[in-house]
Amino acid sequence: FGKVKSVKFDWTKGESIELDSVENALAEGAKAITLVHNDTSVGIKNPAKEIGDLAKKYGAIFIMDGVTTIGGDEVLVDKWGVDIAVVGSQKCIGAPPGLSAISVSKKAWESMVDKPPYYIDLKAYKKSANKETAQTPYTPAVSLFFAMQEALRIVKEEGLEARIKRHAQFSEALRAAADAMNIEMFPQLNNYSKYSNTVTAMKIPTGIDDKKLRNGIKELGIQVSGGQGALEGKIFRIGSMGNISKLDILSTVQAVEIVLHKNDVVKKMGPGVEAASNVLK
Amino acid sequence: FGKVKSVKFDWTKGESIELDSVENALAEGAKAITLVHNDTSVGIKNPAKEIGDLAKKYGAIFIMDGVTTIGGDEVLVDKWGVDIAVVGSQKCIGAPPGLSAISVSKKAWESMVDKPPYYIDLKAYKKSANKETAQTPYTPAVSLFFAMQEALRIVKEEGLEARIKRHAQFSEALRAAADAMNIEMFPQLNNYSKYSNTVTAMKIPTGIDDKKLRNGIKELGIQVSGGQGALEGKIFRIGSMGNISKLDILSTVQAVEIVLHKNDVVKKMGPGVEAASNVLK
Repeated sequence: FGKVKSVKFDWTKGESIELDSVENALAEGAKAITLVHNDTSVGIKNPAKEIGDLAKKYGAIFIMDGVTTIGGDEVLVDKWGVDIAVVGSQKCIGAPPGLSAISVSKKAWESMVDKPPYYIDLKAYKKSANKETAQTPYTPAVSLFFAMQEALRIVKEEGLEARIKRHAQFSEALRAAADAMNIEMFPQLNNYSKYSNTVTAMKIPTGIDDKKLRNGIKELGIQVSGGQGALEGKIFRIGSMGNISKLDILSTVQAVEIVLHKNDVVKKMGPGVEAASNVLK
Repeated sequence: FGKVKSVKFDWTKGESIELDSVENALAEGAKAITLVHNDTSVGIKNPAKEIGDLAKKYGAIFIMDGVTTIGGDEVLVDKWGVDIAVVGSQKCIGAPPGLSAISVSKKAWESMVDKPPYYIDLKAYKKSANKETAQTPYTPAVSLFFAMQEALRIVKEEGLEARIKRHAQFSEALRAAADAMNIEMFPQLNNYSKYSNTVTAMKIPTGIDDKKLRNGIKELGIQVSGGQGALEGKIFRIGSMGNISKLDILSTVQAVEIVLHKNDVVKKMGPGVEAASNVLK
């Protein structure tokens, strides 16, 4: 639907987005900007508010993938000027996978073309949603709608603010544990980017390899992710989103510590779990 | 991805597809032909085999929507030369809605362009399916996959042949009942089209209107569909797909008969249910 201008940064080094490059692209005439709010592949939370301010300044449409933040981290769609925000059912909301939900600003509605491709025909959805009994234009995944409804009730029960605080605390605990075990964080933060509050990406420590580390953890009943693509074998990632508990975080740290100790990467057991506990108490 | 040539026939009259018109379009250079095998909006089963023969003769790709036949009616994909067949989870297979499955012929794979739109990038699915552990390229609706697996086990338990026979018998019973109640079938069959084996479309009988008929049936606990678009108020449709029983068919006929009798459209109760019973016994 138009030319795509890519603003490049070296994700394989965990580099953060530079706002200047984004502003340059907008000054050169970019009409829309897309952002992954929380980049799970590198464990970075990108500066959505600042990007939104730039989009507003240049009159561009701001489309934000909030798949791994909405429901688990602060996302102020209207305040940040996000024109289209997208969320998936299976991440921070804790419903089964299979559904997406989006929010659409007035500006985004107005900028839509008249005959969009079938799968992104939002107007068809709007038309059906506005019927006397709100509907979808085609048969939806009904069972997942009910599951999503229940998941949202659980979110409401916990309280969105409390839930966001919990997610922030859990990832802080993971970072504290990593620090205590001398595991380096992967992201290279700048003034605007932050560590992800839902996925913690760390370098594989010297003295062990990816397979040994992750298989060892898996044998203890916990699954952590490896790096994707160019990062395979270089980093490992711990997800901490959804309906999980303090004990889930502590037992994950414990598992990492056990494997690192068994492989003589850390000299003694305890500091990781202790550091995480201090954050969680 | 090319110009679309429509072969027209008046669906609001329940007209069947004319094979000559289809052949003309192919002779004029149509490269692909799409067919809804079972047209639920009018209750017609279209001649897939014959269309497949024409597609083969002219070297066109034959794409068939088998959403309301696969799992409930005979569909011989390879024998009929269907290059791409599509099925939905929620119709004859009896799983929850939300999934599609397709079959793709060698010819269809070879005719695919290199950079298809995101949502129809079948090559991405093929690549993932061919991995050591078969996967999908993106997170799928996992819970629906398990539901589909269970639904397919139920299909297997009944036996596909028995299941097809049951569907044929159920719709035959509905047609016999309609005949006994002097309700006219809606489709105008020709030499090739057939009455649908999964949805029976009938004209609203004289002496009652759509609302009175369908609301009356609904009050008895059974939901039947009305006509869509231009057919609203003119026809009503009884679906008979999936894991339903003889009793479901008989009680539906009973409900129709009760409402027609109450509104003096039929003089006596009984003939509809009796005719259906005779087919089902």
